Amino acid sequence: MNLRQLKGTKEFLPKEQIVREYIVDTLKEVFKLYGYKPIETSILEFYDIASSKYAGGSEILKETYTLKDQGNRDLVLRYELTFKLAKLVGLNPDIRFPFKRYEIGKVFRDGPVKTGRLREFTQCDVDIIGVKSEVVNSELMSLVSEAFKRLGLKIYVEVNNRKLLFGIMKEFGIEEDKFVDFALSLDKIEKIGKKGVEEELLNKGFNKKVVDKVFGIVESTDKIKDNFEKIKFLKEKLSNELASEGIRELEEFFNYCKNFNIQDEIILSPNLSRGLGYYTGTIFEVFLKDSNIKSSIAAGGRWDNMIQKFLGSKLDYPATGLAFGLDVIYEAIKEKGLGDVKVKKIPQVLIVPIKTLNKTLSIASELRKEGISCDIAFNKKLSKALNYANKEDIPYCLIIGDEEIEKKEYKLKNMRTGEENLMSLQSIIKKLKS
Amino acid sequence: MNLRQLKGTKEFLPKEQIVREYIVDTLKEVFKLYGYKPIETSILEFYDIASSKYAGGSEILKETYTLKDQGNRDLVLRYELTFKLAKLVGLNPDIRFPFKRYEIGKVFRDGPVKTGRLREFTQCDVDIIGVKSEVVNSELMSLVSEAFKRLGLKIYVEVNNRKLLFGIMKEFGIEEDKFVDFALSLDKIEKIGKKGVEEELLNKGFNKKVVDKVFGIVESTDKIKDNFEKIKFLKEKLSNELASEGIRELEEFFNYCKNFNIQDEIILSPNLSRGLGYYTGTIFEVFLKDSNIKSSIAAGGRWDNMIQKFLGSKLDYPATGLAFGLDVIYEAIKEKGLGDVKVKKIPQVLIVPIKTLNKTLSIASELRKEGISCDIAFNKKLSKALNYANKEDIPYCLIIGDEEIEKKEYKLKNMRTGEENLMSLQSIIKKLKS
Repeated sequence: MNLRQLKGTKEFLPKEQIVREYIVDTLKEVFKLYGYKPIETSILEFYDIASSKYAGGSEILKETYTLKDQGNRDLVLRYELTFKLAKLVGLNPDIRFPFKRYEIGKVFRDGPVKTGRLREFTQCDVDIIGVKSEVVNSELMSLVSEAFKRLGLKIYVEVNNRKLLFGIMKEFGIEEDKFVDFALSLDKIEKIGKKGVEEELLNKGFNKKVVDKVFGIVESTDKIKDNFEKIKFLKEKLSNELASEGIRELEEFFNYCKNFNIQDEIILSPNLSRGLGYYTGTIFEVFLKDSNIKSSIAAGGRWDNMIQKFLGSKLDYPATGLAFGLDVIYEAIKEKGLGDVKVKKIPQVLIVPIKTLNKTLSIASELRKEGISCDIAFNKKLSKALNYANKEDIPYCLIIGDEEIEKKEYKLKNMRTGEENLMSLQSIIKKLKS
Repeated sequence: MNLRQLKGTKEFLPKEQIVREYIVDTLKEVFKLYGYKPIETSILEFYDIASSKYAGGSEILKETYTLKDQGNRDLVLRYELTFKLAKLVGLNPDIRFPFKRYEIGKVFRDGPVKTGRLREFTQCDVDIIGVKSEVVNSELMSLVSEAFKRLGLKIYVEVNNRKLLFGIMKEFGIEEDKFVDFALSLDKIEKIGKKGVEEELLNKGFNKKVVDKVFGIVESTDKIKDNFEKIKFLKEKLSNELASEGIRELEEFFNYCKNFNIQDEIILSPNLSRGLGYYTGTIFEVFLKDSNIKSSIAAGGRWDNMIQKFLGSKLDYPATGLAFGLDVIYEAIKEKGLGDVKVKKIPQVLIVPIKTLNKTLSIASELRKEGISCDIAFNKKLSKALNYANKEDIPYCLIIGDEEIEKKEYKLKNMRTGEENLMSLQSIIKKLKS
């Protein structure tokens, strides 16, 4: 058989997966602290639902895996968790709002494979539906801050507001139906630089003067340090209603952030646009400080209209949220050194019976009852067992021969220092739990 | 749009998903205590690998979802985790044995949808590769016992040995190439009864006398209570080598179980056969005591030859393990009452600001820092907030008006009893953490 790994998919061995589970567990814990509850949606979905106009959009649809089941139904593998949330809301009228949910699960996109971009990957989403106020966006910043503090990563957040961005365009005469097109180019500034974006915008038929004016506002704002000063400047320069509403929302947002006592830097960046069509208000991207990883490690924003449009509903579903990138967070932790990650070793101790297997089984049970992860060297002699423990990075070996059983004192060997001590089971438990 | 849920798939709202995550977390914790480490394999797989002779087998292949990607590759959605483990072993020659791994993930089978059988469902597998001794099967029983104790479910385990089962057939002249066929019928005894199985076996061309003799041995063994007495009886009745080896393994298994101090009932059931072709030795199925749920809630066994055959390797890969059924475990816990489940409420407290939103944000931060899940009634008046808390089963409301801010004493309302107390933040934290 020709064993091989499918391009764009990855399989994770314990060394990596233990850290990935630590990341997911940490995120979940923080999500719960902030009142977000778990849901689980299905991976298989009807094609017509996934491809409806207000689901993921035509760009994503090009990368969607399609299949038929034996009932000849047209299906897809979900490509994101957001439209699944919208569907869940539509099918469950009993949901009470505000509805704060998280979902962590696999999504699939049959697109180009680059570094850090897989075709099958895990999304970690938190969203809140039912609150219009900016306070929930500030709360998300507090959540981001707490999550990355626990993960030991230093971050900063770039923030913008879609209404401000479109308001800047409007101020200089760009027509409303061109806003998204303009924003899509602006979003590439990190990738292709200012010149590249300018060129693309001119090719798209935008007027050079207008492009210059937009860049002028953006650059002048970027030069100001304090966010409230930036807001003051923008208020002076922009007079249309759309821009003013965006500015007002940002002011509210930064005020609430102050009250949340968030220690991380949150920076107003008026060029931040984010590709997706459905953002409507405040948007944010989280980046690492002091790292070679330049891509964002979490991102999101307000998407007020999507659920209403998707469901064709008369009801209003204001919504905002963000997604954490599991793979890039793993890379960030790896960059700092996996040794720093505070996860318990599996196992913490390897019991090595010397012709005493039967009698060591109850000792294993005792240790496990006390919450100590342990394994037994079932089929290895002492030297091989010690070698295995070394290579598998098991911190302790517990060596048990007949004499030890008789005396009820067992040899605990610290595999790092080589130190050996004869100890009672109680002392061993105490030591391993500390 | 025609919103609807795809047959055979399910989406889980928080009420259910919180309990499902509790089950998964409990299982993971126990797996780790026993030295099992996590891996994650991909859902997308090449068709030729998934359909190779020694992967899941032809029965499963009939139910496999197939698809093509944009590179015109023939793919499947994985239908189980076992062949993915075998593949992982084949692609990673650096893995050290014994290799104890767990994997929890979605699998897909396009088969008939019955109660409790979905087309997209979660498997929770633990397996150990590299140990021939029966001690690892007994250790799995200890793991099962600990897992269900933590989940609050009373269980018993039916155990058999494939060699004993085939040995019984051999003893009465059934030919080796008919063993699996015979076992497949025997496995249906719960579903179609003894008469149904007999009929099926006669239809398959088995001799009535032989069928009677097999049933005779099985029934006589079932009547004996003590497992070691059963083994003694089987030793007397069976003389062929295959049966003797099965009996010897079972004796070893039950001896080790004794040494593991397992409190749950483990019962030797010589008719237990389990459908899958690849089991080679001891097999087990876990059932609930005192429950209306009659299907097994975990099951597994020894599968020594599969990896070797799958990889076409000269090396030996003795393996054994078991799978937990997340959906049926959920049903069992629900049957007992979801109220008994020891999961922390999300959120534990709802902060209700009365025109004090800005000032309550830092209080929310304080509570969260202390590990207390809390939410803020962003856009609700007092009566609506209390109503929301009641319906969402939030245990406490923390009501904060201007006066409370000034005095630094806040009103904590117990939503179950209606009791209200003015308390300092420190006392509130102390109370909610207790």
